[in-house]
Amino acid sequence: MRHTIQVLVENEFGVLARVAGLFSGRGYNIESLSVGETLDPTVSSMTIVTRGDAQVIEQITKQLNKLVSVIKVMDLTDTDHVEREMILVKVTATKETRSEILRIADIFRGKVVDINPRSYVIEVTGDERKIRAFVELLKPMGIRELIRTGRVAVMRN
Amino acid sequence: MRHTIQVLVENEFGVLARVAGLFSGRGYNIESLSVGETLDPTVSSMTIVTRGDAQVIEQITKQLNKLVSVIKVMDLTDTDHVEREMILVKVTATKETRSEILRIADIFRGKVVDINPRSYVIEVTGDERKIRAFVELLKPMGIRELIRTGRVAVMRN
Repeated sequence: MRHTIQVLVENEFGVLARVAGLFSGRGYNIESLSVGETLDPTVSSMTIVTRGDAQVIEQITKQLNKLVSVIKVMDLTDTDHVEREMILVKVTATKETRSEILRIADIFRGKVVDINPRSYVIEVTGDERKIRAFVELLKPMGIRELIRTGRVAVMRN
Repeated sequence: MRHTIQVLVENEFGVLARVAGLFSGRGYNIESLSVGETLDPTVSSMTIVTRGDAQVIEQITKQLNKLVSVIKVMDLTDTDHVEREMILVKVTATKETRSEILRIADIFRGKVVDINPRSYVIEVTGDERKIRAFVELLKPMGIRELIRTGRVAVMRN
């Protein structure tokens, strides 16, 4: 089962390696991860998406809690929360495909963030399913690069 | 100096911990990091933002290149590239502040992704400066939560 785990950590070097090491030490792959500063620049928030057995995830969560630099760990999986990610796609744009690409971008409320004579870079945000649908539609045009941010989540309460 | 480094890695467990460890082993803090799958699900792309001496960054880049699971390392710092990040902000919304919050969201081309009687969750994308300006404007309303994705980048060529 897929789990979304949010970890608040003190913004010190080494934290990320230690947190990531706890997952890999158990053979758990981190599917996506985002780390960035919170409102308090001494605190960073990590959002980790991983797949695995609920019991093992619970063990990892407990071990995370024991790390000195970890302030708070929340498994958001069963909570009511909003999940979003951002994607940047560089897609080949020819005279024939340009208007279709812009139409697709528009439908997905995407933004064209860069243009050159041969390609567009389009930014789209949304949940995993929306992102996947967007990518599938652009594939036939020729995707030259695709970068995801990894997911972030906020509880609805 | 701030550096934006992009690393293409094979999507295996342990890679993230090893990459992060190379930075922390030299006392380098990772300011922001995003990892997500590329178009090829066996390959992930990591975007790392760190600060430091160009020479040390070069050494780290060389060591990254030596890791078995690392496919490609690019320091985007001096290249022409687009950098974007996404932020989710949960802001207190009262009868008095609601319309002002929506106005600010609108100016920043933000999206309201969740609403409850006491707060809005707003998503904004952009470069660091835009994100900072947006956060500063919302601060007086009362920010209850703030989650960043970490930066991602795409070369302009």
